[in-house]
Amino acid sequence: MLRVGLLGAGRIGHVHAKAIAGHAGSTLAAVSDVNAEAAATLAAEHGAQARTTEAILADAAIDAVLIATSTDTHSALIEAATAAGKAVLCEKPVDLSLERAIRCQQVAGRHGKPVMIGFNRRFDPNFAALKAAADRGEIGRTELLSVTSFDPAPPPLSYIKVSGGLFRDMMIHDFDMAMWVMGAVPAKVSAVGTSIVDPAIGAAGDVDTAVVTLHFADGRIAVIKNSRRAVYGYDQRLELLGSEGLLQAQNMLENTVVKSTVAGVTGAKPTYFFLERYMPAYAAEWHAFVQAVTAGAALPVTLQDGINALALAEAATQSARTGETVAVTRDMLGG
Amino acid sequence: MLRVGLLGAGRIGHVHAKAIAGHAGSTLAAVSDVNAEAAATLAAEHGAQARTTEAILADAAIDAVLIATSTDTHSALIEAATAAGKAVLCEKPVDLSLERAIRCQQVAGRHGKPVMIGFNRRFDPNFAALKAAADRGEIGRTELLSVTSFDPAPPPLSYIKVSGGLFRDMMIHDFDMAMWVMGAVPAKVSAVGTSIVDPAIGAAGDVDTAVVTLHFADGRIAVIKNSRRAVYGYDQRLELLGSEGLLQAQNMLENTVVKSTVAGVTGAKPTYFFLERYMPAYAAEWHAFVQAVTAGAALPVTLQDGINALALAEAATQSARTGETVAVTRDMLGG
Amino acid sequence: MLRVGLLGAGRIGHVHAKAIAGHAGSTLAAVSDVNAEAAATLAAEHGAQARTTEAILADAAIDAVLIATSTDTHSALIEAATAAGKAVLCEKPVDLSLERAIRCQQVAGRHGKPVMIGFNRRFDPNFAALKAAADRGEIGRTELLSVTSFDPAPPPLSYIKVSGGLFRDMMIHDFDMAMWVMGAVPAKVSAVGTSIVDPAIGAAGDVDTAVVTLHFADGRIAVIKNSRRAVYGYDQRLELLGSEGLLQAQNMLENTVVKSTVAGVTGAKPTYFFLERYMPAYAAEWHAFVQAVTAGAALPVTLQDGINALALAEAATQSARTGETVAVTRDMLGG
Amino acid sequence: MLRVGLLGAGRIGHVHAKAIAGHAGSTLAAVSDVNAEAAATLAAEHGAQARTTEAILADAAIDAVLIATSTDTHSALIEAATAAGKAVLCEKPVDLSLERAIRCQQVAGRHGKPVMIGFNRRFDPNFAALKAAADRGEIGRTELLSVTSFDPAPPPLSYIKVSGGLFRDMMIHDFDMAMWVMGAVPAKVSAVGTSIVDPAIGAAGDVDTAVVTLHFADGRIAVIKNSRRAVYGYDQRLELLGSEGLLQAQNMLENTVVKSTVAGVTGAKPTYFFLERYMPAYAAEWHAFVQAVTAGAALPVTLQDGINALALAEAATQSARTGETVAVTRDMLGG
Repeated sequence: MLRVGLLGAGRIGHVHAKAIAGHAGSTLAAVSDVNAEAAATLAAEHGAQARTTEAILADAAIDAVLIATSTDTHSALIEAATAAGKAVLCEKPVDLSLERAIRCQQVAGRHGKPVMIGFNRRFDPNFAALKAAADRGEIGRTELLSVTSFDPAPPPLSYIKVSGGLFRDMMIHDFDMAMWVMGAVPAKVSAVGTSIVDPAIGAAGDVDTAVVTLHFADGRIAVIKNSRRAVYGYDQRLELLGSEGLLQAQNMLENTVVKSTVAGVTGAKPTYFFLERYMPAYAAEWHAFVQAVTAGAALPVTLQDGINALALAEAATQSARTGETVAVTRDMLGG
Repeated sequence: MLRVGLLGAGRIGHVHAKAIAGHAGSTLAAVSDVNAEAAATLAAEHGAQARTTEAILADAAIDAVLIATSTDTHSALIEAATAAGKAVLCEKPVDLSLERAIRCQQVAGRHGKPVMIGFNRRFDPNFAALKAAADRGEIGRTELLSVTSFDPAPPPLSYIKVSGGLFRDMMIHDFDMAMWVMGAVPAKVSAVGTSIVDPAIGAAGDVDTAVVTLHFADGRIAVIKNSRRAVYGYDQRLELLGSEGLLQAQNMLENTVVKSTVAGVTGAKPTYFFLERYMPAYAAEWHAFVQAVTAGAALPVTLQDGINALALAEAATQSARTGETVAVTRDMLGG
Repeated sequence: MLRVGLLGAGRIGHVHAKAIAGHAGSTLAAVSDVNAEAAATLAAEHGAQARTTEAILADAAIDAVLIATSTDTHSALIEAATAAGKAVLCEKPVDLSLERAIRCQQVAGRHGKPVMIGFNRRFDPNFAALKAAADRGEIGRTELLSVTSFDPAPPPLSYIKVSGGLFRDMMIHDFDMAMWVMGAVPAKVSAVGTSIVDPAIGAAGDVDTAVVTLHFADGRIAVIKNSRRAVYGYDQRLELLGSEGLLQAQNMLENTVVKSTVAGVTGAKPTYFFLERYMPAYAAEWHAFVQAVTAGAALPVTLQDGINALALAEAATQSARTGETVAVTRDMLGG
Repeated sequence: MLRVGLLGAGRIGHVHAKAIAGHAGSTLAAVSDVNAEAAATLAAEHGAQARTTEAILADAAIDAVLIATSTDTHSALIEAATAAGKAVLCEKPVDLSLERAIRCQQVAGRHGKPVMIGFNRRFDPNFAALKAAADRGEIGRTELLSVTSFDPAPPPLSYIKVSGGLFRDMMIHDFDMAMWVMGAVPAKVSAVGTSIVDPAIGAAGDVDTAVVTLHFADGRIAVIKNSRRAVYGYDQRLELLGSEGLLQAQNMLENTVVKSTVAGVTGAKPTYFFLERYMPAYAAEWHAFVQAVTAGAALPVTLQDGINALALAEAATQSARTGETVAVTRDMLGG
């Protein structure tokens, strides 16, 4: 039974608490948060203790921590937790600074404890089924990947301002998805971004709509489309062309009802947002972490994966600014 | 907090145990089964006690029982449980004998305790969305309902022999579905059945494929198709034609991946069977029961609903035998 | 080059004129109609002559006639045309009277000329693809067929009154479709009909909504659903369950555009009516007739097929009236 | 009645001959081809005369010419035909040389005769319906367009070598589609191309797979994906995100049959190639040309549209080579 400390009792902390508590191989022992009341409430819900982060890290009876705090604390907490001998599952991104993330990996690497990054979408049953079909060779050699990833509505401007920008905050998931599906890190990145959804986002120095093209060394291509607003719901699709066919992972819908009237044939919208769409993925992610830590299975997502995604975000940010294709160097990946 | 005794620790008992234990308003207090070991195992899984049925009914601290035993014990247990002051949720069908079910209702009716029958499909989010749209008048006046209900594979012949026949065992769900969607009990029933899937089923006196037409007094029609075998999975669909349109509830699929190759465009199969398809429905069913018992909400499915479905099964069995349309009399519905 | 006389210059006559004139192996030589102006107009459109039916039948240079006149003239025209040595393609139904149709077959049979009945739907590419897949054994042994056939709107009451009733006028197509797909004539028919779309149709002695079940001697079942009104368009679907799978022929849509908004995900409606849906089928039907007549290919639809469909219409009409299953006797099929 | 001379009797010439001959407002008067026999055969099929191009242009009774010859002759023929007073419909592209195409426009412009370029896809009913819905504001302000355009199989290498490259030969259609849907010429183009389908294509100096991003001055973005090989058929889709929703134009399928077996749920493939998919579009294109020429309607596609598409092809070719974003200057559009 893995005894787990949860750092962070916000919205995503609640999601993880449920997964930890609901798993037969783990128990939620303690919760910390900068807001002590939030920690207390969440802890009470699951029969856990509300404690400080320091106390959790110092407790030898805690085997693992799940880091669900604000992004600017991730690197330091990964370092501290691994130093304290804990296995770590940390929410994405590792850090807003690629440099800091690389340093974190060097520090954490010394302690030899498993560190997994929370790219939950890999555990979505639809994306996983697409990846498995591609890996079985069902469409031959893969050639061209398209990732469509639209949020239903932009976050508050206050969040945008501290988010690190669309490429680091939102497209980071899609960078990871693309590298996971293609099984490689791209050699070059070209990006274009615009703030067409809301000019205030542009005024804040960010974009809300973007297209990024990834060029792999072997000639394969991936293209990622992001928008902060798709009013019909959370639009999360993959499309992979290969030498022998095409694989598509389509949206999950709210229900299967279809209505035909004089106005047309209408079905349900996609599930609204990540909580609706990815709840099974969070549970599967946690299960994979528990398996890796307790049964010695390989980590399905590594700290290096987190750095790779961050490096692409860095390159895309630069390409969108300059209009030039940016090479992904060995340095950017932590050497 | 509703304290619940579960009678029956078989496959469907496990499903209900999970729903009871997972609900914030109920707790699984005790489990009984003719197989004491099965009861003990299931009880242990949920921190409940394994007890005899008699002990559970005698325990004043138990508020409600869920009857998930074999069909031939349902009527007697409903009577005993209501006599002992328990609220009851009983698996379908009430009984294989319509006469016995009507008597059960008379006996149980005297005790004034809520008795709900487990027609879980009403709680399927897809069927519920179709029903809600129809009730909102989105397709005008309803005229013609089609129910497609195919199992992936026939049960063992040993089960078929004691099942009461396809109309009482399998189509009973669809009879309830039809009356629920149409909001009425039909006036007449015509049926045709055949044992084309497996002649051994015919030799055992049952059918494995059947079409039943329900004639409502106001001229509306419903048609139900059943097959014991659809090799591609559990096929559960509704289609409702109205004066202003058509509503369809389509199958849920295993995933949303679509593969296009020279062989065609292939998507996932329907979810395999009722455990995969209706797990959310069982949880919603239990929630509705808890609401009805604790908050005084109306029972969404009554013992009368169970009798109505059984009466249609009786009529269909007779019609399939004689080739004649059978009227549904007041007597058949318990007067 | 087959020289063709077209009898009847109404709506369906126009459809056939286009198919005849557009076919490389046939030429439209002459057109007749009770309305001489209608004949003249249609003839002029295709460079044909407007003549009387008698003149057309008497002209030895005319090889074949297409009978697209009102139903009550079909039998007599088939007899006269075959007596005059013409090959015949006659619109469905052969006659409203089964007895008369059987007599027509006896008379026409003596002349040894090909007589094909215009069950155009067999030539729809979707239904033909379903039939071909079933015949190739792609779903194993066929067990249960469903035919959904809804018109967009009822015809004028004046038409209903002389139509012979829904079973002879509208469902006749579906009877033929069912026998064609199943490759057999059913042994028994049970029917229920209602006039729920428009009570005036009921007052005129007809039904507008009906469900008919066909029982085949080998235990297979087909169910046909008809409605005179599906406001969303012409709903024409087949669904065939077999021992190894399910085949569905779905509707053709007006276009492939899908719109996702806050209101849902909306696609185009089915093509509106038979002219939109079945135009390619009419051309393919004519091609098959030309092949049969000029190249000695087997007739794809025979006069016997027309009688079989009419016999089922007769049986269904009777079953809907009495509530009893009606046997299809050898006599009803013309001995 | 528009009297038409067809220049070019190859595959696409046959398509156009059929459209011209089948239109009530036009007649195919003459056909020319460098291969006199090909011209004679095609002319005979439609009751036209086989003549030389010179004779056709010199014939005052010919009102219009359709240019379906090899690309290297387009500019000169447009100039000659307009000089001879003919209205012109010319196949895409105007020329492989942007400079030459601009000169052609200057020359042809002096004669004041209508010149339409054959971007047939604008006339596809699905794309036209998407465009109409967008123009009606059904998804609010348009923001992000995706064009998927995959051929079923690459052309012979001999063709590739003289084609002008994927961007000028194949993606030219998609450049026009993007500008038509978005209603604007983009300000910048970035492209990446690869020869992953067949290295021989790369050795010949071309690419077979490419992604191009178009940046519009108002911040909107379009992304085009091309592949020379999608083994499942001709994949032609549009997807347009707006402030109030998403519009998708999906593929047309060979038929509507769906088969469900243990292997999954399989539907038909997309129609195989442009002849199957776009035949109705060619007829609609011709109709629009006839309308414009005879009834004075505006030309739906102009020579300028042809130059714009060629300018984007030029920019994309350059961007794919350098990795830099290329600005679309006024000069490139002919000033």
